[in-house]
Amino acid sequence: MVPTIEWKDGAVRLLDQSQLPGKVVFLDCRDYLTVARAIKELVVRGAPAIGVTAAMGVALGAQSIKAVSYDEFLKAMLSICDCLAATRPTAVNLFWAIERMKRTLSELQDRPMAEIKRLLVEESQRILDEDIALCKAMGQHGAKLIANGQTVLTHCNAGALATAGYGTALGVIRAAWEQGKQIQVIADETRPVLQGARLTAWELMQDKIPVTLITDNMAGSLMKQGKIQLCIVGADRIAANGDVANKIGTYSVAVLAKAHGIPFYVAAPYSTIDLKTKTGAEIPIEERNPLEVTTIHGSHPVAPAGVAVYNPAFDVTPAELITGIITERGVFRPQDLAAQFAC
Amino acid sequence: MVPTIEWKDGAVRLLDQSQLPGKVVFLDCRDYLTVARAIKELVVRGAPAIGVTAAMGVALGAQSIKAVSYDEFLKAMLSICDCLAATRPTAVNLFWAIERMKRTLSELQDRPMAEIKRLLVEESQRILDEDIALCKAMGQHGAKLIANGQTVLTHCNAGALATAGYGTALGVIRAAWEQGKQIQVIADETRPVLQGARLTAWELMQDKIPVTLITDNMAGSLMKQGKIQLCIVGADRIAANGDVANKIGTYSVAVLAKAHGIPFYVAAPYSTIDLKTKTGAEIPIEERNPLEVTTIHGSHPVAPAGVAVYNPAFDVTPAELITGIITERGVFRPQDLAAQFAC
Repeated sequence: MVPTIEWKDGAVRLLDQSQLPGKVVFLDCRDYLTVARAIKELVVRGAPAIGVTAAMGVALGAQSIKAVSYDEFLKAMLSICDCLAATRPTAVNLFWAIERMKRTLSELQDRPMAEIKRLLVEESQRILDEDIALCKAMGQHGAKLIANGQTVLTHCNAGALATAGYGTALGVIRAAWEQGKQIQVIADETRPVLQGARLTAWELMQDKIPVTLITDNMAGSLMKQGKIQLCIVGADRIAANGDVANKIGTYSVAVLAKAHGIPFYVAAPYSTIDLKTKTGAEIPIEERNPLEVTTIHGSHPVAPAGVAVYNPAFDVTPAELITGIITERGVFRPQDLAAQFAC
Repeated sequence: MVPTIEWKDGAVRLLDQSQLPGKVVFLDCRDYLTVARAIKELVVRGAPAIGVTAAMGVALGAQSIKAVSYDEFLKAMLSICDCLAATRPTAVNLFWAIERMKRTLSELQDRPMAEIKRLLVEESQRILDEDIALCKAMGQHGAKLIANGQTVLTHCNAGALATAGYGTALGVIRAAWEQGKQIQVIADETRPVLQGARLTAWELMQDKIPVTLITDNMAGSLMKQGKIQLCIVGADRIAANGDVANKIGTYSVAVLAKAHGIPFYVAAPYSTIDLKTKTGAEIPIEERNPLEVTTIHGSHPVAPAGVAVYNPAFDVTPAELITGIITERGVFRPQDLAAQFAC
């Protein structure tokens, strides 16, 4: 797999996911505004990947600050952080990563400016490296839940492309596959932005993991036919009570899984858990441009001009529909997450 | 509204629905093979519309037969009927309409050839006129189920475009609207062929009935938010036990409606009921070209080349998930349909 996010020659290099699977091209961001725009326009997406990218955006922004005093530097840094935090509202990893960079910065206030700038880059690289390690740990914990011969449904893309590498939900699938389990994946195409069709199918095909693509509305029928044994998805934010915000359509998959007695798992690192958000009702849900629904790739119309559209990018799955949350520290019932956090 | 199907100047004129909403163009079928291809390639779709079109195709085929004896004529006619019956497997109205044309033919065997040909055209026109009348009767029965101010979710297109005019599910909505009820419609876009986005949205906008377009995977989230009070869909075949085959995704909508305590209705004429099919498990489900899923309109790719695809065009909703079936004779519990049929 090509890297999703990379610090390269003083720039943040992003695999341009908006062009996959047709073209494998990279965007070299040489300033933090380009990083912010890349997050907003889905060049990079997926909660953990957004977090890593934002951290690198903060580090990149730091390099161009001309300030000589720490206070001046801090002021410029906070403005950069605000700009990056304003790109997307739902995935909490974005805010988590920016907060961590701010914390690092505050710990460095006595150091020379050049050293601060270098250490911020190192911290963002550490966040990236940790993200891959977390995904691999999640994979080890989660792979035990998949039996040989099973078929797993996943929604959207919670793969290497949604993280710094390896993936959350797809990391679990990947780990089971690497253990030699003969598994099949059913990928929901995930309208409107088609992350399942464009990214999950592409990513699994690269790794030669058997994948079958369906439209979102086929999942229920497949479950009824007994063709799906397990569902695993990612998460954009997990509230203190175990409610999970994830890509629009996740809630429907969870209701359908429950109706068919199929286990429904969420795979996400601890940085996705937001204890300040008490329940899913408090999670801000981003509404995106209607053109995502009325056109394909912004240009190919599929609906009458001027039609009213509702386009929420996420929905909330209540804790009671979730069998377990797969984290880097183990698999927990959503209701037990907050207690684990305290440990 | 422009007519969906029309006998015009010795040809079967079809509104080419594969080009909506971008272009309003008509296909004049001058031989029955063109009619068969039009059904297969979704120029015309929707169970009642397919039935009417097939009947007109049979009448059109009759005109070109050169036979002088009735036996010779019958043989040619049966071959035409077989060809039209082989176009699509799921919607029973297709077979119902062809059977009715065969019955008419057998009743005419003592008439002069020219008269038989003329009377077959008349019979197909009668099927068309009856279809509109049935839809209006369904509308009157069904409109009572929609209260002023309610929002109705519909899936696929069961409208004027799916019938000879007025529509089944959309006929019910249209009747409620004509009675002055202030209602809103949520239209599932209905991947892969996008009948909801392309046809239902277009049709309702023509009539100025308020419609909001969503992707299929948003329906569950809207139900959870209390934004949908009622679901009404069409049907391609209803088994004797009340199980309903309809556009892929209908089953998921029904499961979601049940989970949220939302009434789920099916609107369909008696010609959609197939007492020879005991349960939904016996209904043949058409699988269509993977290109419908991997591309938009056959040309614009949305998935990696060569990906495995599952593309069933229909699914089966079991009777227990259906609140009522709206027919031209009234609204019945699915379990009571067979008994009503005997009346």
